[in-house]
Amino acid sequence: MQFTSEQRLDDGVLEREFTLGEIPGILWTPSSAPAPLILISPPPLGLHKMYPRLAGRARYYAAEYGFAAATIELPGSGDRPRWAAAEQARADLRRAMEADEPVSDEIVDALILPLVDKAVPEWQATLDALLSLPEIGGPVGYEGGVISIGIRLAVVEPRISAAGLFAGSLVPAAMFEEARQVTIPLQVLLQWDDEGNDRQAALDLFNAFGTKEKTLHANMGGHTGTPWFELDAGARFFARHLK
Amino acid sequence: MQFTSEQRLDDGVLEREFTLGEIPGILWTPSSAPAPLILISPPPLGLHKMYPRLAGRARYYAAEYGFAAATIELPGSGDRPRWAAAEQARADLRRAMEADEPVSDEIVDALILPLVDKAVPEWQATLDALLSLPEIGGPVGYEGGVISIGIRLAVVEPRISAAGLFAGSLVPAAMFEEARQVTIPLQVLLQWDDEGNDRQAALDLFNAFGTKEKTLHANMGGHTGTPWFELDAGARFFARHLK
Repeated sequence: MQFTSEQRLDDGVLEREFTLGEIPGILWTPSSAPAPLILISPPPLGLHKMYPRLAGRARYYAAEYGFAAATIELPGSGDRPRWAAAEQARADLRRAMEADEPVSDEIVDALILPLVDKAVPEWQATLDALLSLPEIGGPVGYEGGVISIGIRLAVVEPRISAAGLFAGSLVPAAMFEEARQVTIPLQVLLQWDDEGNDRQAALDLFNAFGTKEKTLHANMGGHTGTPWFELDAGARFFARHLK
Repeated sequence: MQFTSEQRLDDGVLEREFTLGEIPGILWTPSSAPAPLILISPPPLGLHKMYPRLAGRARYYAAEYGFAAATIELPGSGDRPRWAAAEQARADLRRAMEADEPVSDEIVDALILPLVDKAVPEWQATLDALLSLPEIGGPVGYEGGVISIGIRLAVVEPRISAAGLFAGSLVPAAMFEEARQVTIPLQVLLQWDDEGNDRQAALDLFNAFGTKEKTLHANMGGHTGTPWFELDAGARFFARHLK
């Protein structure tokens, strides 16, 4: 892990860009150390585009709750190399949505499963590197955009103690099986009128999670309409579990 | 409104029992005044039996958030007079549940609709009396056990600015129509495995509410298993709206 930039923000939070091999990322740390850590997985739209939203969340966590927070660029996002099958799946998805057709299981699988397979080991390597820093002490929470990545990480990565997930992306049928194996506390956000997400499928996924301590927060509005107060509700969820 | 007892509790909250005509009630006020007010409607099990839970909520609101809180005995609960039709409906309900039969619409209507008709004007009279006290300044929130009472109050009582409802009781079909007329912010609790409450009906009711600012908090477990952290989540919901 190499730090490539560093700035102290006006809320006292230290923001550092880093690279881990070829993966770019950003780390925000509070003035108190060692701090519990929240991994903020971005949606697959590129860190640059998502920066304002990610930094807003991370700085709130750091300044208000004393959490460190980190994000990395997902495989195939931002300036990272694409792979042909994902490009094909994205094109197929776009075509289906423009034609107002149902998105087939094949498209969902091709879009999500390889992304999960690639992203999860990268998050684990990032976690290795972050937990070696003296200013980060664990425990670790995870939150993020592509829910299937969060499901897999919650199952395979014992260092993650709690996860905040957003039921707002296409979920391969195979991930429902993995969801049954999740046993850590979860807080799941659902946008009731999410144009790109079937409400009943999201409720079924919430139902499938194996953990006994799971809470669903459903709010009105479309995909990007999550109300601002859910940021604090998420922080308080992590504050309960990252002690 | 006549106060019949008064004690200063160790958290600095003043607890006073009162009667309003023949209706007994309890008022909790914080040391700061004038305070916003939360009406806490009990489940129909009697104030005496529910006292620990009601007082726990009220004292948390008062001590942590500076809200006043008040509750009154529902019609037909505690020592208040029963009426024959409600007794009959209760007996019919018990019989249906013991026989593991579905509870008919007739039973639900007979049980709930007269209770709503009686309870709502009593809450309004209580509100008149409470808002005349110098230590209570409004605005007013409502939360409570029998969701149909909350629905009706939210529709007919303009002094109520926000409501926290528990989707855990039988709801007459007619109340779904009233739910569509609710326009104040709502936070709705749902116990995912509520033995006495159909999950899909609760989700349908949440969907029916006409308000744009509504949030569902669904947690695992049965009717009485609402997790402790929802108390603070409720307080924060009211803190956002009772300013």
